[in-house]
Amino acid sequence: MKKIEGAVTAAKGFEAAGVAAGVKYKDRMDMAMIYSNEPCVAAGAFTQNIVKAAPVLYDKEIIDSKKKVKAVVVNSGIANACTGKEGFAYCEQSAKITKEALGFSEEVLVGSTGVIGMQLPMDKIEAGILALAKEKKEDVQSSTNAANAILTTDTRKKEIAFSFEIQGTEVKMGGMAKGSGMIHPNMCTMLSFVTTDANISGDTLQKALSEDVPDTYNMISVDGDTSTNDTVLVLANGLAGNAEICYGTEEYNQFKNVLHEINVYLAKEIAGDGEGATALFEVEVKGAKTEEDAKKIAKSVVCSDLTKTAIAGHDANWGRILCAMGYSGGVFTPENVNLSFVGCENTVIIMKDGDAVSYSEEEATKILSENPVKALIELNEGKGCATAWGCDLTHGYIEINADYRS
Amino acid sequence: MKKIEGAVTAAKGFEAAGVAAGVKYKDRMDMAMIYSNEPCVAAGAFTQNIVKAAPVLYDKEIIDSKKKVKAVVVNSGIANACTGKEGFAYCEQSAKITKEALGFSEEVLVGSTGVIGMQLPMDKIEAGILALAKEKKEDVQSSTNAANAILTTDTRKKEIAFSFEIQGTEVKMGGMAKGSGMIHPNMCTMLSFVTTDANISGDTLQKALSEDVPDTYNMISVDGDTSTNDTVLVLANGLAGNAEICYGTEEYNQFKNVLHEINVYLAKEIAGDGEGATALFEVEVKGAKTEEDAKKIAKSVVCSDLTKTAIAGHDANWGRILCAMGYSGGVFTPENVNLSFVGCENTVIIMKDGDAVSYSEEEATKILSENPVKALIELNEGKGCATAWGCDLTHGYIEINADYRS
Repeated sequence: MKKIEGAVTAAKGFEAAGVAAGVKYKDRMDMAMIYSNEPCVAAGAFTQNIVKAAPVLYDKEIIDSKKKVKAVVVNSGIANACTGKEGFAYCEQSAKITKEALGFSEEVLVGSTGVIGMQLPMDKIEAGILALAKEKKEDVQSSTNAANAILTTDTRKKEIAFSFEIQGTEVKMGGMAKGSGMIHPNMCTMLSFVTTDANISGDTLQKALSEDVPDTYNMISVDGDTSTNDTVLVLANGLAGNAEICYGTEEYNQFKNVLHEINVYLAKEIAGDGEGATALFEVEVKGAKTEEDAKKIAKSVVCSDLTKTAIAGHDANWGRILCAMGYSGGVFTPENVNLSFVGCENTVIIMKDGDAVSYSEEEATKILSENPVKALIELNEGKGCATAWGCDLTHGYIEINADYRS
Repeated sequence: MKKIEGAVTAAKGFEAAGVAAGVKYKDRMDMAMIYSNEPCVAAGAFTQNIVKAAPVLYDKEIIDSKKKVKAVVVNSGIANACTGKEGFAYCEQSAKITKEALGFSEEVLVGSTGVIGMQLPMDKIEAGILALAKEKKEDVQSSTNAANAILTTDTRKKEIAFSFEIQGTEVKMGGMAKGSGMIHPNMCTMLSFVTTDANISGDTLQKALSEDVPDTYNMISVDGDTSTNDTVLVLANGLAGNAEICYGTEEYNQFKNVLHEINVYLAKEIAGDGEGATALFEVEVKGAKTEEDAKKIAKSVVCSDLTKTAIAGHDANWGRILCAMGYSGGVFTPENVNLSFVGCENTVIIMKDGDAVSYSEEEATKILSENPVKALIELNEGKGCATAWGCDLTHGYIEINADYRS
């Protein structure tokens, strides 16, 4: 597996574009398109929030139908959530406009992110789609434009790509994502798009995605709020020309490893670029009775407002970590716990066998001032392990969210 | 039921005191005592956090033993949590010192709140107990001193008292509490102490408390963090001279009503005085399929960082409320939802039958600038209802918590 330049256009046959359509933001790109020259199989994972945005409902129908897909159209600024039948009709219209502009009959997936409860300005969306259809290209810059256009309060684009070999044939896979606020995915994260030229069936692609989401996007949290719009989409067009990847084979594992690397990278990028965040906060739990316990405990620690503000203050207030472990719902014995902060160069042991260890506050503060900040929790009860990712909670989060709509 | 002056010393035979013992804070009262001339039956409710502070473990043993109690000793500044056997021994020592100083053989309950992981300075605790034993009186000022001494980051004392009649006999009940941070009670809240001179058995008192906690302390949240120290204690010394209150009778309901009023008042005071809070945020859910659904939905809305920051910004960003309802785990149909903000004078309807209603942003902002801020959610699915209380999330919370220990 080799990291390569680009993202959603890295794989053969994929093009992308980003344009400024003025949906809500002014003077910046706010609509993106991914396009494949060949029809793709598609896999998706969506929010488990009861209140599902129109694009989530629309995409879910298409993914479930197993129809072939040729394009994805995304806007930022308005979420198209809590918009009723009108909002759903706008998804259908966006798909229709895209198909007509590009002259194909396969399906178009849509994505939206931004303010809940506003209707999309369809005149601007239509003009945006026509511009995207003209602009789309397979170069790196076009892929980067798309990655920038899907951002909201994010401070930086999130993209990555790899090339790897399947039985001697080169296959490429790349992805982009946006996150920042309302990030506590339960099924998958805000918006993430992965493209590959691998030859793989839709069912196998869906299995690979469904198996990987619980360990990646579902293990991050910025603010505990599970969005109405969370969506991960993976498109595969088969242009690499490898023999079809079948479930359970060595090739499947190779493919899934690369998908996992991309998903973990994008998930960590989302957590580390949470609204107002100054550091990624990584919590690794080892030695839990079960993996489920490890996940509950790791996630509870990265979700705690009190641990998050302690990280913001570079303060080794470890009692808050113990507290968040204790109400996580995960089973453990406080008397068996080891806790340490792991820095780039040094590790500071804070607790050993449930007893506080005397440590240098100065050294702890130094580690807690790095980015990322990593806590290692050893429970000494079994073999369950998990890692969760969050960020610190700062004044920036309040500034962004106390007045988001204006 | 009539509101009267005072709090934990309002009921006959109860004395209290607050002193500056220098446990951790300087130049302020930080130790409190409640003392009853007659032995009391006692009821308690404690944190469900796996990591339980030493005083929680100590008090739970005494409450479970059903032994009579004569005093409660509380310190603020240090939580005596994650302190192992040494911390538990300090609870035993505190009780012993109190019994010797005051010359009785009944039990002493203890309470601590503050930083997790530090050991209590027992020399200062001992001196504090001896001072409290000298200072304790039954007047209002002594009760207020105790209410002040138990505070940490709270901005104001929380106390209330009522007198009422049971079969023609006057009975009194009063309580005090502290809250502020690490507030997301799961069984009961940070620290709350209620005294009454009612004649009631320990078992009946425990039933009354256990029935009421789920609707009061367990329905508030400041930051989603369930503390290691949450404790509610109710003491009854029988000095009112009423005929014993038996479970399930009219008199039991009268008694429980007063206990409920006190618990609701203190719970709301804790929520409204959350760390950095500028407003109490009350969410009432009506018409849910079940009470359980109503509770999940109400609590999810007051716990959402995004709704809390919107309240801080006086911003009617109602999409965040729908979003928090949607991931609550409570069942409802988005198409049936009515949502409104209820002010002192006006109500603004935001959503009717699942559709956004056009409303005056100016009027909504006015209501959202009041204290408390109230949201009414009607689900139109059944008869389940519940109310939860939280507060806004402001820069103040970050300031307090990014550097709490120093």
